[in-house]
Amino acid sequence: MSRCSHSQDVHGPYETYDLGDFELEAGGAIRGLKLAYVTFGKLSPGKDNAILFPTWYSGTTKNLEQAYVGPGRALDPSKYFIILVNQIGNGLSSSPSTAPPPFNAARFPRARIGDDVRAQHRLIVERFGVERLALVLGASMGAQQTYEWAVRFPDAVARAAPIAGTTRTSPHNRLLLDNFIAAIASDPAWDGGWYADASAVHRGLRRHARLFALNGFTPDLYAQALWRKLGFVSDEDFLTGFVEGHFLPQDPNDLIFLARKWRDNDVSRAGGGDKASALARIKARTFVIAIEEDGFFPLADIEAEQKLIANSELKTLSSKWGHLALLGVDPGYDARIDAFLKELLSLS
Amino acid sequence: MSRCSHSQDVHGPYETYDLGDFELEAGGAIRGLKLAYVTFGKLSPGKDNAILFPTWYSGTTKNLEQAYVGPGRALDPSKYFIILVNQIGNGLSSSPSTAPPPFNAARFPRARIGDDVRAQHRLIVERFGVERLALVLGASMGAQQTYEWAVRFPDAVARAAPIAGTTRTSPHNRLLLDNFIAAIASDPAWDGGWYADASAVHRGLRRHARLFALNGFTPDLYAQALWRKLGFVSDEDFLTGFVEGHFLPQDPNDLIFLARKWRDNDVSRAGGGDKASALARIKARTFVIAIEEDGFFPLADIEAEQKLIANSELKTLSSKWGHLALLGVDPGYDARIDAFLKELLSLS
Repeated sequence: MSRCSHSQDVHGPYETYDLGDFELEAGGAIRGLKLAYVTFGKLSPGKDNAILFPTWYSGTTKNLEQAYVGPGRALDPSKYFIILVNQIGNGLSSSPSTAPPPFNAARFPRARIGDDVRAQHRLIVERFGVERLALVLGASMGAQQTYEWAVRFPDAVARAAPIAGTTRTSPHNRLLLDNFIAAIASDPAWDGGWYADASAVHRGLRRHARLFALNGFTPDLYAQALWRKLGFVSDEDFLTGFVEGHFLPQDPNDLIFLARKWRDNDVSRAGGGDKASALARIKARTFVIAIEEDGFFPLADIEAEQKLIANSELKTLSSKWGHLALLGVDPGYDARIDAFLKELLSLS
Repeated sequence: MSRCSHSQDVHGPYETYDLGDFELEAGGAIRGLKLAYVTFGKLSPGKDNAILFPTWYSGTTKNLEQAYVGPGRALDPSKYFIILVNQIGNGLSSSPSTAPPPFNAARFPRARIGDDVRAQHRLIVERFGVERLALVLGASMGAQQTYEWAVRFPDAVARAAPIAGTTRTSPHNRLLLDNFIAAIASDPAWDGGWYADASAVHRGLRRHARLFALNGFTPDLYAQALWRKLGFVSDEDFLTGFVEGHFLPQDPNDLIFLARKWRDNDVSRAGGGDKASALARIKARTFVIAIEEDGFFPLADIEAEQKLIANSELKTLSSKWGHLALLGVDPGYDARIDAFLKELLSLS
């Protein structure tokens, strides 16, 4: 399970950008906010070839790199200046697990997707002098950030590709998140977030993993034993080796922080609470990409929002891996995504 | 939430049939096995108008009566002798919560759907002298019992109507059950099944309820706030009042016992381990009924099994209530089910 393991060994080298004390939209501040990021390729003299790609739930920039970046791929470093950025709370950018006391662990303040996007905007302007991104893309929570980018900074986003995500978390999706949080927080070792050792909360992390695996993949993935393609030999072997193996090295407070941010996602705050008004702000050429079998973000929800976005197209693909095709485990998904992104990047 | 509350007040009167010591297929025995049942209508002189309807997960015969039985309904007591029977472990028939020590609570032996069906067969033969049932029907775990009846006792089942269930629990569905069990068993108050007071395990029961609500209903139910039709005023109000309210009065060991029985369901044991061979034993005129939006038992799984059953038809219906339409909360579902059952009962 090298692809998704969250150990320090596989995060790869990354740089950090220090934004100083950063006020949060829901109140409070993160002291000395640091964004961890990595870049590939070279920024053109005109600074018009930059692509921004923020992370999904429980993922790092290393996951994005391995699944989406490379020669011949849509995100080709020989053509583009690709900025992969870790969202706040993922363990590499400022997080409950990395903040120094007294604002650490259970005291780390709540943040919103809007905070991520404001911080990322400062990163690209202050660090790289980029005023307009050729493309912002992201999957799942990365799609949430992509939408927020296009709504908040319409003139800074030439193209947008939100993948397998929505602009506002639905009531059913919020219930999913409540279940994720409860799976971890119900472990007595979590202790309200005040555990001394994250690995002591492994029972909660394992429960969370198996709950994640329930709707994250499709029934067909299990029925057809498609996990064999990753080298596993049984359902149990797959659930333990792949899914528990992904979450066990992660910090329980970081995951709960991310789950709350996901649950609270709502671009309509930028439109005075009205979703249609918020989405009407988007100027980017937008490909809304959906996985037909997605158990986290149903196609119908994604399509309803796409219709509110001018200059957008709905692009769908099918994968038995469901939502978690985004991990780069399905060559069919990878090929379709690349084709969509290449088409979008070819449009002016 | 009067319809589904599991308090003694609303179970209504029922009779019990004592089967004595009952050997179980997976080993061990239930001492003094008692089946709780209730009947409506009169058995015809030819004993050819009997209908058997076993319960679903966490349900009682009172739930079946309220949702399916009445004048003008398909299950009309003026025409049929309707036997509603509580499955083993549901709290009314012999259960972990009702067995006397030493075989109580965590020591109550594991049972299979096949045990239920063998016990129910003795009930109808020994208690009522019925050799052939006009109809066996059931929803969810009741469908599991219906299939097992048709496979085990092909000459005793004239017609069968399995609703929203499968003949063998799929790998994905087993993962769902593992999550249900973990939600309860992770509560320290559960204590390996040795709690002194079931209500002390309320945190685990509440977690189980919210997990049940995730795939039991559809995303559209939440998005369209269809729970308003039951008198609730918010998602939280619905999840607490309806779903937690349904499970809180129930016994944690009973629920875990039922969840394991559901998980282990497999009619193919009666066919030497081969599903097609087992289903080839069925002689009943069979309507396989599926809810298109079912999040517990996908339509594709149900349809694949229906094709293995001679003399069967697939009947589908749509409900935003998803799997839990079977509770009798959607008039559209009730009307479609009645039409299917009336058609089936009219066939010779």
